[in-house]
Amino acid sequence: MSLVQPIEYDAAPPAVRAVYDDIMATRKVPSVNNFWKILAHDPANLARVWAQVKAVMAPGELDPLVKEMIYVAVSVTNNCEYCIHSHTSAARGKGMTEAMFHELLAVVALANETNRFANGYRMDVDERFREPFAT
Amino acid sequence: MSLVQPIEYDAAPPAVRAVYDDIMATRKVPSVNNFWKILAHDPANLARVWAQVKAVMAPGELDPLVKEMIYVAVSVTNNCEYCIHSHTSAARGKGMTEAMFHELLAVVALANETNRFANGYRMDVDERFREPFAT
Amino acid sequence: MSLVQPIEYDAAPPAVRAVYDDIMATRKVPSVNNFWKILAHDPANLARVWAQVKAVMAPGELDPLVKEMIYVAVSVTNNCEYCIHSHTSAARGKGMTEAMFHELLAVVALANETNRFANGYRMDVDERFREPFAT
Amino acid sequence: MSLVQPIEYDAAPPAVRAVYDDIMATRKVPSVNNFWKILAHDPANLARVWAQVKAVMAPGELDPLVKEMIYVAVSVTNNCEYCIHSHTSAARGKGMTEAMFHELLAVVALANETNRFANGYRMDVDERFREPFAT
Amino acid sequence: MSLVQPIEYDAAPPAVRAVYDDIMATRKVPSVNNFWKILAHDPANLARVWAQVKAVMAPGELDPLVKEMIYVAVSVTNNCEYCIHSHTSAARGKGMTEAMFHELLAVVALANETNRFANGYRMDVDERFREPFAT
Amino acid sequence: MSLVQPIEYDAAPPAVRAVYDDIMATRKVPSVNNFWKILAHDPANLARVWAQVKAVMAPGELDPLVKEMIYVAVSVTNNCEYCIHSHTSAARGKGMTEAMFHELLAVVALANETNRFANGYRMDVDERFREPFAT
Repeated sequence: MSLVQPIEYDAAPPAVRAVYDDIMATRKVPSVNNFWKILAHDPANLARVWAQVKAVMAPGELDPLVKEMIYVAVSVTNNCEYCIHSHTSAARGKGMTEAMFHELLAVVALANETNRFANGYRMDVDERFREPFAT
Repeated sequence: MSLVQPIEYDAAPPAVRAVYDDIMATRKVPSVNNFWKILAHDPANLARVWAQVKAVMAPGELDPLVKEMIYVAVSVTNNCEYCIHSHTSAARGKGMTEAMFHELLAVVALANETNRFANGYRMDVDERFREPFAT
Repeated sequence: MSLVQPIEYDAAPPAVRAVYDDIMATRKVPSVNNFWKILAHDPANLARVWAQVKAVMAPGELDPLVKEMIYVAVSVTNNCEYCIHSHTSAARGKGMTEAMFHELLAVVALANETNRFANGYRMDVDERFREPFAT
Repeated sequence: MSLVQPIEYDAAPPAVRAVYDDIMATRKVPSVNNFWKILAHDPANLARVWAQVKAVMAPGELDPLVKEMIYVAVSVTNNCEYCIHSHTSAARGKGMTEAMFHELLAVVALANETNRFANGYRMDVDERFREPFAT
Repeated sequence: MSLVQPIEYDAAPPAVRAVYDDIMATRKVPSVNNFWKILAHDPANLARVWAQVKAVMAPGELDPLVKEMIYVAVSVTNNCEYCIHSHTSAARGKGMTEAMFHELLAVVALANETNRFANGYRMDVDERFREPFAT
Repeated sequence: MSLVQPIEYDAAPPAVRAVYDDIMATRKVPSVNNFWKILAHDPANLARVWAQVKAVMAPGELDPLVKEMIYVAVSVTNNCEYCIHSHTSAARGKGMTEAMFHELLAVVALANETNRFANGYRMDVDERFREPFAT
């Protein structure tokens, strides 16, 4: 059970409601999920985290679905139950099929495997891989 | 320095050369990178890992570039220096621009942040996020 | 469910009771928590781990409350459910308010975020940060 | 070597300079460290991350030195070389002595140890540790 | 609850049944565990992962029991609940006693502790530890 | 470079020398490695950590070589460079051949892979795997 109780919309102070309203409007959903209702105990943090999520997850150089799948990849690697469920759900809402999900997990699992071969053998990085971006 | 020396093509036994040849042909590259030259000390493992990488990273439900970015996301989360360099390089070869790389890291960093809010508060998963795939 | 059953005081052998007694006396609590009741299956390990916890968590250069919050920070980063609960409880017993807990999690989440920017970009450490302690 | 080159003040566009100026003014330092010079390649992200660091690390419910030590605790757990160096340096600038640093690492190491006993034995959380905050 | 439902033998397509049959024959067990029933949604991945597990976990240079204990060590470090249970069970089936399990966890916990001392102090590796294998 | 300088035997205070002496006598080595020379800045911690390592790594239910390989498995999973090198060296000193090392890494990599399938799919633990030890 959560260490703080979720704050529902009706019980929320105006500053929290304003964030909830923006989440619902941005995502076109009728309510906010527990993540935000828990963060709401610290309204300044709630506003900061939402502003960051809103900016980072917006369409940009990467497709929003790709971003959600990256989110799932990190959450699986870290074993964050809440985040695996919430971002898998979000990815499905943006078009991730079950077949895509299987493939996503296969890549995540493979990367976790080969990361350990590289670290375990203390592999030297090939010179050509070190080339920085040109800017 | 690596715990074993890389095995160069000319010094490799036939079973290893066969894998090297397949890597170079599949990826259309003139040589294999250190990862494979190190794994080559255990030829059966080399063949297994390559077969897996070849299958999982092939075009499928997900675009190869998306797969490389997922690979980078996992490698950054685990802090695998070799893998960050090699898969960032691979992603660049498949079209990842510098702007896309910045956005990729912003998503990875954000996910690592929110994973800890979810875990730290011990957040309960919203019922609607738990719905399994339908098959 | 735990892989071994907790050993209650009444069923414990003398060597285990001696550790339980010292835990209760040191912490001024009427019973020991499950962590110790589980470790008790390996009495030598129980004694070793308790001796270490007792020494490291005692007042010293750092305040006991600060130590408990550091413990929570590590446990959240590793996602140890048991430890998040037990050390959040301990920190509350030593004066951590809810507002402090929110701030603690905000720092932990932020550090997990920026750790990935540093690792993902493979940032070089500024020379002035490398200065060792003077002793 | 970093995947992008640091952007020095003189070469930075106005939006980046504005962030650099605020960092230097807030921290009372004559230059910014590499972390920011690397993030500067993505000016919007630079501004977002700095705003978050500035807010979260400001004096609040927790002492700034305590916050820096929590940052070190997370960075050590994740093995982020850059962050261990930069936040150890920051903590020293805020008064962390060498003796405090030793004690900090002892707590971090101990927590990483006991986290695995708790997870490995799959310990059940004591009921009294689950009590949520009262708000 | 799992994100996909387990596929039971009677409902499985021939390609999946063939893998199930091989698992049961290799392990001399009357049914397969959930891990395989879940992977079965992606039959190609199921076949790949099983082929890899079969090869890597077979008797070789290391004893099968030692391999299972190494599996537990990794799973505890990563906090994979499913894997801790399944590989502890497998290790017990291969002869791991409770006393061995306690000792295994003591080593795992200790390694997680000392890993952080090494990383936190940024210890230089002794020259004599760097010697590569001779081949 | 390390955050504190190693303390050599000749410069060490008596309490530190006593630990160094015991390490050298127990391990039958002519000098101690950097790990201990760094911990020596906090003599009480040095003595505690050594006492724990001495007890946990001594022959017991598990073979000392098996213990060293478990240590490597954890260190590779966590990517602790110092510990990978020092415990691979220790394992070699106790009889680990290069072929065994390859197999060890194959198991470690595989476990890191399947951990993510289990966590990513949120697999339910089979009832028969949950059976606790009988004591």
